Amino acid sequence: MSERYLATLETPALLLDDTRMQNNIDRMRSRMKELGVSFRPHVKTNKSIDVSRRLMDTSEGPITVSTLREADYFAGYGVKDILYAVCIAPNKLAHVTRLLQKGVQLSLILDSMQAAQRLVEFARGIDRPLDVLIEIDSDGHRSGLAPDAPELTEIACFLDASGINVKGVLTHAGGSYDCRSVEAIRAIAEQERLAAVTAATRLRAAGLACPVVSVGSTPTALYAEHLEGVTEVRAGVFVFFDLVMAGLNVCRVEDIAISVLGTVIGHQTAKGWTIIDAGWMAMSRDRGTDGQAVDQGYGVVCDIEGRPLEGFILKGANQEHGIIAHRSDDPSISPNLAVGDQVRILPNHACSTAAQYEEYNVLNDSNEVVAVWPRFNGW
Amino acid sequence: MSERYLATLETPALLLDDTRMQNNIDRMRSRMKELGVSFRPHVKTNKSIDVSRRLMDTSEGPITVSTLREADYFAGYGVKDILYAVCIAPNKLAHVTRLLQKGVQLSLILDSMQAAQRLVEFARGIDRPLDVLIEIDSDGHRSGLAPDAPELTEIACFLDASGINVKGVLTHAGGSYDCRSVEAIRAIAEQERLAAVTAATRLRAAGLACPVVSVGSTPTALYAEHLEGVTEVRAGVFVFFDLVMAGLNVCRVEDIAISVLGTVIGHQTAKGWTIIDAGWMAMSRDRGTDGQAVDQGYGVVCDIEGRPLEGFILKGANQEHGIIAHRSDDPSISPNLAVGDQVRILPNHACSTAAQYEEYNVLNDSNEVVAVWPRFNGW
Repeated sequence: MSERYLATLETPALLLDDTRMQNNIDRMRSRMKELGVSFRPHVKTNKSIDVSRRLMDTSEGPITVSTLREADYFAGYGVKDILYAVCIAPNKLAHVTRLLQKGVQLSLILDSMQAAQRLVEFARGIDRPLDVLIEIDSDGHRSGLAPDAPELTEIACFLDASGINVKGVLTHAGGSYDCRSVEAIRAIAEQERLAAVTAATRLRAAGLACPVVSVGSTPTALYAEHLEGVTEVRAGVFVFFDLVMAGLNVCRVEDIAISVLGTVIGHQTAKGWTIIDAGWMAMSRDRGTDGQAVDQGYGVVCDIEGRPLEGFILKGANQEHGIIAHRSDDPSISPNLAVGDQVRILPNHACSTAAQYEEYNVLNDSNEVVAVWPRFNGW
Repeated sequence: MSERYLATLETPALLLDDTRMQNNIDRMRSRMKELGVSFRPHVKTNKSIDVSRRLMDTSEGPITVSTLREADYFAGYGVKDILYAVCIAPNKLAHVTRLLQKGVQLSLILDSMQAAQRLVEFARGIDRPLDVLIEIDSDGHRSGLAPDAPELTEIACFLDASGINVKGVLTHAGGSYDCRSVEAIRAIAEQERLAAVTAATRLRAAGLACPVVSVGSTPTALYAEHLEGVTEVRAGVFVFFDLVMAGLNVCRVEDIAISVLGTVIGHQTAKGWTIIDAGWMAMSRDRGTDGQAVDQGYGVVCDIEGRPLEGFILKGANQEHGIIAHRSDDPSISPNLAVGDQVRILPNHACSTAAQYEEYNVLNDSNEVVAVWPRFNGW
């Protein structure tokens, strides 16, 4: 496509700064090299082959997905090595079969004997071995067995004895998103590593090879001091970063690669409000910074070139209306924007904001749209 | 299609109870008749021709939309009378032209002289008169001019003198969503009516016909005592209802027509958690009940037939994980759900949850899927 100016875009629209994204990717790659682990990027944040090609080691992967639709989509582009990192639900097994029949090397995860039994029943009806990892709980935030749970070896041995290929263990320290300091992230990274390695050690003592020890979250991947015993890292949000990550000091605000382009549609001058056509449908309802030191509302307001308008945030949002106001609520401080002026809003959470869109408008360093990359949503 | 059982659906999936929806529609229709006003349903909640056909008076409308993509989509099905109820942004005027060229009778809204001037400039380049309503602020929650603002008549007269067809005034008492009682809703409904009628009276005194006096929100439409001087009502969320509306006593929980089907994927027994494959991507990040008397978390948990599991809500959500727990957080109270069992989650906010999906699985009274109705999102 020929280059297009932002001013010609109908709003709201999702923008992607190519240079920022590439810098974020380079940073993660060099961390992986330093840590001596392989990288299995999580594509749930971007859901785009164009973005994911920048992340993958090879055109066949490996990648991590959060839905089987992601697996379908990436398999359609030739990606083969796919880890579906949500405990498998029995009603998805027919879908799993279709993916295996297409030649995808799909790994599943589970954390219970109930799920293991359902999987073994299912495996009897198919003609190839299933690859499974057992999910370990490293921080109490959602799924997984405790590293010292007796069920861990029971389940692994049951699967192994039933002809399932127990590839290893996996954990995700999602609790790192709630940290308040880099020191806290380092501590949770060590907790994540130790949980996975402890679980793997127990499986090996029980006679299983357990070749894969998989950990990951963007904060822990970037701040782990070492990852001894870990074989692979998963992370996804780093590719774009967001205000939640900036609030954790995992990135700077100026590293955030996606933003929402909106247009001023009116004012409530007495209140100091500037109203734009990007509301919660454009930003998502994610208020991830509300528990952080600095609450960014529905996002940080920038000018059309992406420079923050100091102190201005999207204070409120209706479905298709966003309300720009000064952080202080002082109505006399105005961003001086007229009807028709465009602004860019940096999002709280890259995964949820990007999921409101079907495409990325990719910007070069002159803020021209040089490509439009499709993305998808749903299941 | 032949009927399908819920158990055969891959999850998460969006369900729509046809009988509940039709009852909700019948209730609103009889209210409109009682109030003696015409009805211009807001289709932003449903974004589906199959749902909207049940709402519209005729196959050509009228309807209200929140995006021009909605206008495009419904125009593609022959809908002609469309009100775009967000102040027009200058970068959307080329799109407006395309809709007008297709024969759509599109009405626009604005609330400032800046926007009026941009519109008049644009109107010079097209060969048909534009229909415009002026937005009035009836409750201070977002856009609109105060009913007594001097600019109101200035803008209207400027538009009229410039050849724009000033159809009337419009207001939306979105503040009704924050009410705590039916009495408060009645009061805000009267405030909404009075603001619109006052503004219309001023325009008429200034010599403009002002044939349209448009108000609406689901709570005020259902509880207004009378709508003297109002010509049309807009409302959208009533078609499905949701927990926010139930929290306002505008509907009962058993009137909520949409729900998300999820599947149990594991447990954290010590905490009393049951984990399902419907997280915030499936429910949206909307936490609209958190300021209400009863915080419903990310939704109310029901069995597969749609009966609430007393006391259980979706307490937490990750991207693709939902955490079911008892409202009391007492880990000894369990819903007794096994891996593979399905549940239905009633959403906080119909507009945001439905927007996470591309289709409605329509249920008959036996909870069989009898149709799949597509919907769309984006701009």
